[in-house]
Amino acid sequence: MFVTQNKVRMHDTDMAGILYFARQFRFVHDAIEDFSESEGLSFDDLFHKEHFVFVVVHAEADYLAPLRVGDVLEVRLTIESIGASSFTAFFQIFRIKDNLLVGTAKTVHVTLDRETRKKIPIPDSFRTILAKHHAGVSG
Amino acid sequence: MFVTQNKVRMHDTDMAGILYFARQFRFVHDAIEDFSESEGLSFDDLFHKEHFVFVVVHAEADYLAPLRVGDVLEVRLTIESIGASSFTAFFQIFRIKDNLLVGTAKTVHVTLDRETRKKIPIPDSFRTILAKHHAGVSG
Amino acid sequence: MFVTQNKVRMHDTDMAGILYFARQFRFVHDAIEDFSESEGLSFDDLFHKEHFVFVVVHAEADYLAPLRVGDVLEVRLTIESIGASSFTAFFQIFRIKDNLLVGTAKTVHVTLDRETRKKIPIPDSFRTILAKHHAGVSG
Amino acid sequence: MFVTQNKVRMHDTDMAGILYFARQFRFVHDAIEDFSESEGLSFDDLFHKEHFVFVVVHAEADYLAPLRVGDVLEVRLTIESIGASSFTAFFQIFRIKDNLLVGTAKTVHVTLDRETRKKIPIPDSFRTILAKHHAGVSG
Repeated sequence: MFVTQNKVRMHDTDMAGILYFARQFRFVHDAIEDFSESEGLSFDDLFHKEHFVFVVVHAEADYLAPLRVGDVLEVRLTIESIGASSFTAFFQIFRIKDNLLVGTAKTVHVTLDRETRKKIPIPDSFRTILAKHHAGVSG
Repeated sequence: MFVTQNKVRMHDTDMAGILYFARQFRFVHDAIEDFSESEGLSFDDLFHKEHFVFVVVHAEADYLAPLRVGDVLEVRLTIESIGASSFTAFFQIFRIKDNLLVGTAKTVHVTLDRETRKKIPIPDSFRTILAKHHAGVSG
Repeated sequence: MFVTQNKVRMHDTDMAGILYFARQFRFVHDAIEDFSESEGLSFDDLFHKEHFVFVVVHAEADYLAPLRVGDVLEVRLTIESIGASSFTAFFQIFRIKDNLLVGTAKTVHVTLDRETRKKIPIPDSFRTILAKHHAGVSG
Repeated sequence: MFVTQNKVRMHDTDMAGILYFARQFRFVHDAIEDFSESEGLSFDDLFHKEHFVFVVVHAEADYLAPLRVGDVLEVRLTIESIGASSFTAFFQIFRIKDNLLVGTAKTVHVTLDRETRKKIPIPDSFRTILAKHHAGVSG
């Protein structure tokens, strides 16, 4: 499990007074960026130096409580499954002040060759990183 | 079925050169806003004059093709199911220049009392609107 | 003058109930994209096929009235000045329903070589396009 | 001077590979939110419990260097001037890894009565907060 923090900002809210639903996915992707960076693979390097990239092919989220500007969040990422050329990440989002689970999300990513944009097997070095955070594995 | 158009903008893309995945949901919600407005219920009125609001409790999307800045989209909305106090909307997004289905999405909405934020049955007037766009019903 | 339309969306608003100030700039840039496209130069082509790009080095905006979700806008773009390697665009944003000037903006752009990212003179073909929309010139 | 940190995220970039210009203003507003919160005045309280709000009437920014995903930023906020019912904030944004000034910004805010939305004098309690961060004053 990889854990990072985030904060609900004014620009994440809408005129209903709470988080605009699609913005929950930015907490999710910010966590993926932090996770990748923590494993020595920054997104800037990934898209400019590596021979592979990974793209989102499916995303889903559940909304369990309304979030307000200023809410500080803990985002917990686990890798739910690892296939030949895709992996699934699962996210739990907690509001820190009351330790409430406010949302969950899942994203499915496919690894592509950076140049051809064809599907390729997950590179071994990246597979090792994912495996460290596989659910059921202590991490 | 309700049909509206949209356009991929620079601010929808990211440094990978294509649509940032979470932004597909803004095409989805823009379509809900257009749909509601087309039925005489603007979102500004909804949140200030009506006694109910509807909030997203679940959202999911599939990404079938990369979208680039300038791509003009047709978004087709159907109401997939209508329950006591919730409804499910289904979306197909086509890129107009090649009539390609580039993404799908589903959102589940719950109706709340605007003041108490408690779940309430879908008001009859709004249920009638939803029913007009129910899948399987010509609309 | 180049004229285009836009619409205030839920995702443009914040919990104050009105447009999040920075989002006024997306109406501005959407207009630049429409302008460029209307002159046969799509942003996707610009960043992939042309030898130059233009980047924003200064931006400013005045906010004259609060904007609400659903407000339909007319954005008027004029080229205020054209230098050796930079140009200034000026924007007026009107709310169509009451023809009210709700905001203005100005952006300064510099042309760069796409590969080296060094400043270069505005290419003649693009200078011609800009000149057509120069303030004081009928266009 | 109030100092806070931020980070360039994938959703802040666009297909040009760098920060979408309007997103620099979210670093600016995030800093205002952090500043206000650090003085005991959260934005959520501000818009729900106080009798006043402050709105942006002018914003401007200069862009001094391209920002990439993952760049960690230090945002320095000073209050440049304090009038009867308005104040001006000035921002310097540094990229931490090379201590480079990558952008500056200025925002002008007007205080309004929360209910009537009429301009009101800056409340004394808030004026005291602003004065602590007035440029030229140690803070």
